[in-house]
Amino acid sequence: MNSVGKSWLLLTGLILFYIIYLLFGALVFSSIERPVEDELRRDMEALKAEFLNQSCVSAASLENFLVRVLTANKYGVSVLRNSTVTSNWDLASSMFFANTLVTTVGYGHTTPLSDTGKAFSIVYALIGVPFTMLVLTACVQRIMYLLVIGPVCLLQRSGLEPRPATVVHFVLLLVLVVLCFFLAPAAVFSAVEVSWSFLDGLYFCFISLCTIGLGDFVPGTQPGQKYRPLYQVAVMVYLFVGLMMMYLLLRTFHKMSDLHGLTSFLQLPRCEESDVDEDREPIVDREDRTPPQPTEKAASRPLDPGSQPSYNTINKG
Amino acid sequence: MNSVGKSWLLLTGLILFYIIYLLFGALVFSSIERPVEDELRRDMEALKAEFLNQSCVSAASLENFLVRVLTANKYGVSVLRNSTVTSNWDLASSMFFANTLVTTVGYGHTTPLSDTGKAFSIVYALIGVPFTMLVLTACVQRIMYLLVIGPVCLLQRSGLEPRPATVVHFVLLLVLVVLCFFLAPAAVFSAVEVSWSFLDGLYFCFISLCTIGLGDFVPGTQPGQKYRPLYQVAVMVYLFVGLMMMYLLLRTFHKMSDLHGLTSFLQLPRCEESDVDEDREPIVDREDRTPPQPTEKAASRPLDPGSQPSYNTINKG
Repeated sequence: MNSVGKSWLLLTGLILFYIIYLLFGALVFSSIERPVEDELRRDMEALKAEFLNQSCVSAASLENFLVRVLTANKYGVSVLRNSTVTSNWDLASSMFFANTLVTTVGYGHTTPLSDTGKAFSIVYALIGVPFTMLVLTACVQRIMYLLVIGPVCLLQRSGLEPRPATVVHFVLLLVLVVLCFFLAPAAVFSAVEVSWSFLDGLYFCFISLCTIGLGDFVPGTQPGQKYRPLYQVAVMVYLFVGLMMMYLLLRTFHKMSDLHGLTSFLQLPRCEESDVDEDREPIVDREDRTPPQPTEKAASRPLDPGSQPSYNTINKG
Repeated sequence: MNSVGKSWLLLTGLILFYIIYLLFGALVFSSIERPVEDELRRDMEALKAEFLNQSCVSAASLENFLVRVLTANKYGVSVLRNSTVTSNWDLASSMFFANTLVTTVGYGHTTPLSDTGKAFSIVYALIGVPFTMLVLTACVQRIMYLLVIGPVCLLQRSGLEPRPATVVHFVLLLVLVVLCFFLAPAAVFSAVEVSWSFLDGLYFCFISLCTIGLGDFVPGTQPGQKYRPLYQVAVMVYLFVGLMMMYLLLRTFHKMSDLHGLTSFLQLPRCEESDVDEDREPIVDREDRTPPQPTEKAASRPLDPGSQPSYNTINKG
């Protein structure tokens, strides 16, 4: 098998492992949290029935009742009649929670109730967050040619100068991302979620794809939603692909800034030689350029990372 | 003024501007959200009084009441008696919210109620998130010498070989970060927040510094907390410094991996020449190394980013 084939096989393996990791997290979260949730739910039902049985409601008893209602609500257990049917810790919801954990979006609409759940969340994110970043990077590496290098080439062939071509390409890519990952999903969300306006949808997309994840708007939490598990999986795919596109956009912007000298303009005065060199490393090359002559700097720059076993040359003290 | 002085002046300017940006956000959020919150709060008080005045509580009226209570609670307005004194949108709380927005932590314990607030959140984060990343990077660049390059040098001078020195250093740094930014703050939080256990504190620190920010535990939200604004500012400083240390740790790990060939081991088979080269660029140098001879690869590598105006050489299609 050639290296391209191997590379795609590895990517498929990574994504498969990512899905397995999410499923594993979902199973563990579900088995830890569901019993605790069920107990809390039963408690709340009993509490509500007891409250309704009182002959007269005093301010103190109402206060007591509300304290417990709001505490349960914090953990995603609502006392409302029409919300008791669905669990926050069924398989799809647990997977959705695991996904928001490893992508660092973290809506917090459901949170672990038990200490075991909290401890597992820490361990799960400790492995999951770097792994997700790895999978995202691997995916971006592979769509880079299709969405960045190819189109820029095409623009250049159609007669544009190299620098304007990268700007035109970036603007086009930005428009594409805003259309496909902000405006279109916002329209879909505002249609599917009955209480969401278009602005709510847009706000949700933005807050999610920036990984802020406030959690005031979370799709698939309304009672009686049809095909809820399927919808949650669709939102998870949207989040993953959206984050990938945000990362691609950031990388393209960085490449374009490099090309236009914007990086060095924005860059802080150097305090570490190595960092600056690293950031200034050119990523692009001119077609019609004559190869530069090796300078002293090129000669003194090590080529094999394996042969540089300390941080010494950047020690200027 | 020398370049080091200028560099520190620029950093001070950046941090000052960061604080001003947070204050500006706090003022805008406060002025937009406070009136809406006050109105909701008054509504809730009236609702509660009306509910208590009923001669008998029916299941339907309780359901109605609870729906409104829970909706208000979602926006951070509680009907409980002892929580009505403090606003979620006073200056300190608004600044805390602005801070969780730009650092992408996003607890979501308070969220904008009005459409204006939501729209402003989008614009504010659009500028604030990249700016925060810039400030964090600038800070990390400056503590890199003190906490990474200096100590590694010291370890080498004390007789350790370069590679083991970087491992020992990374382990020491990791222990320091875990102690100072996870265990110690967790102990402080569990002491200050009456309802938090040590695990709760640790869980909060971890979920925050990974920018997941579930928001089930947020410091300074309990009623009757003393010196609340001061406490919130302290938590903001903790978050900022903690994120800086997490970033430093990540960078040190990356440097160490480079040195030990772990990066290339973990790296996916190349699909883009430029990306791989960029990632493999060595950051460290060996003291006793003979300078490598310029190879063909070095000669063909452009040295001045300003002279490379397209993405063409990475186009292999």
